Amino acid sequence: MLPISFISDFGTEDEFVGVVHGVIARIAPEVRVIDVTHGIAAGNIRAGALALTRAIQYLPQGVVLAVVDPGVGTERRPIVVETGWGLFVGPDNGLLSPAVAMVGGASGAHVISNPDLVIPSAGSTFDGRDRFGPAAAALASGQVTIADVGPSVDPAALTPTMLPLPSADGTSVSGTTWWVDHFGNAQTNIGPDDIAGLGISVGDTVTVRLGPTHHELRYVRAYGEVEAGEGMLIVDSQGLIAISVRESRADQRYHLDEGRSVIVQADSS
Amino acid sequence: MLPISFISDFGTEDEFVGVVHGVIARIAPEVRVIDVTHGIAAGNIRAGALALTRAIQYLPQGVVLAVVDPGVGTERRPIVVETGWGLFVGPDNGLLSPAVAMVGGASGAHVISNPDLVIPSAGSTFDGRDRFGPAAAALASGQVTIADVGPSVDPAALTPTMLPLPSADGTSVSGTTWWVDHFGNAQTNIGPDDIAGLGISVGDTVTVRLGPTHHELRYVRAYGEVEAGEGMLIVDSQGLIAISVRESRADQRYHLDEGRSVIVQADSS
Amino acid sequence: MLPISFISDFGTEDEFVGVVHGVIARIAPEVRVIDVTHGIAAGNIRAGALALTRAIQYLPQGVVLAVVDPGVGTERRPIVVETGWGLFVGPDNGLLSPAVAMVGGASGAHVISNPDLVIPSAGSTFDGRDRFGPAAAALASGQVTIADVGPSVDPAALTPTMLPLPSADGTSVSGTTWWVDHFGNAQTNIGPDDIAGLGISVGDTVTVRLGPTHHELRYVRAYGEVEAGEGMLIVDSQGLIAISVRESRADQRYHLDEGRSVIVQADSS
Repeated sequence: MLPISFISDFGTEDEFVGVVHGVIARIAPEVRVIDVTHGIAAGNIRAGALALTRAIQYLPQGVVLAVVDPGVGTERRPIVVETGWGLFVGPDNGLLSPAVAMVGGASGAHVISNPDLVIPSAGSTFDGRDRFGPAAAALASGQVTIADVGPSVDPAALTPTMLPLPSADGTSVSGTTWWVDHFGNAQTNIGPDDIAGLGISVGDTVTVRLGPTHHELRYVRAYGEVEAGEGMLIVDSQGLIAISVRESRADQRYHLDEGRSVIVQADSS
Repeated sequence: MLPISFISDFGTEDEFVGVVHGVIARIAPEVRVIDVTHGIAAGNIRAGALALTRAIQYLPQGVVLAVVDPGVGTERRPIVVETGWGLFVGPDNGLLSPAVAMVGGASGAHVISNPDLVIPSAGSTFDGRDRFGPAAAALASGQVTIADVGPSVDPAALTPTMLPLPSADGTSVSGTTWWVDHFGNAQTNIGPDDIAGLGISVGDTVTVRLGPTHHELRYVRAYGEVEAGEGMLIVDSQGLIAISVRESRADQRYHLDEGRSVIVQADSS
Repeated sequence: MLPISFISDFGTEDEFVGVVHGVIARIAPEVRVIDVTHGIAAGNIRAGALALTRAIQYLPQGVVLAVVDPGVGTERRPIVVETGWGLFVGPDNGLLSPAVAMVGGASGAHVISNPDLVIPSAGSTFDGRDRFGPAAAALASGQVTIADVGPSVDPAALTPTMLPLPSADGTSVSGTTWWVDHFGNAQTNIGPDDIAGLGISVGDTVTVRLGPTHHELRYVRAYGEVEAGEGMLIVDSQGLIAISVRESRADQRYHLDEGRSVIVQADSS
């Protein structure tokens, strides 16, 4: 009996999430379901992939059920991916790939096509309910194995998600914001090693270009190292560089959103 | 030990939902609670009734706890309805009726009045916590039977919810949108049989009047049958006709909301 | 095996809540977690303290995990407070104090500093995941006792939260709104005893000053005592005086928000 960790872009204002919980409970009443989040922006595969990647190491090993699926009802394949961590159930649209890579890569993959695992429906718009949920429940409860869900496919041929990497030229590191969280912190794809490569140390004040504007920000490891209301570069809870303001919102202060250019400059002194 | 499926208009920004979970856990620690949704628009009994009706066949049989209760603290009766599916606990304001009908109708009903099942409170504004939650917990755990909750009432006299039916005149079907979901899809009360009655087949392009405007939409069974960004009439996951746009929002494209007129015209060719 | 009741300002659009559930499930798979709410306004310690205080008597005895923590990464202490009700885990910033007082006060307190209970992280911005969640899980499952989490501190020296009290002068009671709920009801810090002290009885019509405006409102015990659309003073589900409108929103009708002045006047007749 494995736990299921469930992430989607279903929102919580409709009954979608509850219906998938119901489907799982009908098939596998003893299986525990943890809701990772259902607040991924509708159809934003990359945002879902990043959230799952941030979460995966903290989730109990077992089954991931991930549904951000703008291509439902098209050619995209419904799959189960096998890894050393456990099983990932979802659409083959790139949603699963970064988390699968994070846990060491795929050792196998199967397309979900066994009709015994699919709930018949007049429509084809809700595979979370009709296909992914039932497959996750049957796998988590041990009623089927991955080989039972459908034919094997090459795990190397699964759809990847391209995540932008920062680039460095010795005098600066160029990256991007790829997540603005509930508190207004903007996580970048830049890591502490990139910053260290510029000769910048924790405690230094750094020149950061955010779009057309320059800002002088302290580079810190904890909010307490700056004053309330002061901006900073901080090593965040995933070990990435984030732009934050102590006890306030960096997204509002610096007009940040997903996908904004961030350039950290080496000290010219 | 039956599972409880809990739906309400409580929202999640306050502690209302958590408090009802707490009340249930104190009375019946072993009972599992599935949150169907708590995002029903405040006081919108019909929206709650429709969501519960859409969900019911996917929920594990047991107890439904449903609270959309603008009449709390007035004459409306707190009830438990007995069906072949299980028990429905909530206000007698029409919220439960469509789902009860969906599972085959009521075989009995009782007013919740047993003081042993009611949590004493200084106020009378939160029957979800003080009356419906405790009754659901006691019933789900088998501590009481439906006859213990209070006097029997005639199940035929429960408050109905009137759901509009589409009308057809041979050249068109007139219906309404009654749900716009998280993704912007607008479900109508029109079914595939109504469309077939006009001589329209899947794959046809159809003239649809949405308020003052006419649109030519493909009638399809899957999103993949149209191009990204293209509008359609689609058989949705409840087997009803919805207005959707592939990988985009139909509500924004066509200015749709709950209660908008939808007229599908027979092909005049 | 004690249940954990979890309240925070994490919101549900990110994976924060799910990650804490995951951390708890990895440490203590059998422990049940009840989500009280994660919709506390970001960083609003007082709002979190009030919500927890309203909820506490309805939660199953065990462990409270409360995280509204604008001072994460600063000097504020992570603590566990021992009470007759159970254990409270969270930051020592005033969040816990009113609920601890509500259940009879603290019999002990310990700072969470045992490195075995802390998940190592590159950053220090997410103590809910790295420190409070693990401590709650280990305590709830009995893997550690409160003495194991770290050194004892004086429970009398914990950070209080100052909650405003109403003041009365014989002809009026002056208070404040301190919570506007999902339905637009504005709870005040005024109680029925304060109203009774003015010689006002349930059923009377009362003069209420809300900022610059005067309103004549019925003082009632149930919504049914006024007409639909009519405003009222009502004894709410916590036994406090709230300003409500039957089947509508008092916050919109009377332009109410948290922290607005409310003056109830004695009848001058």
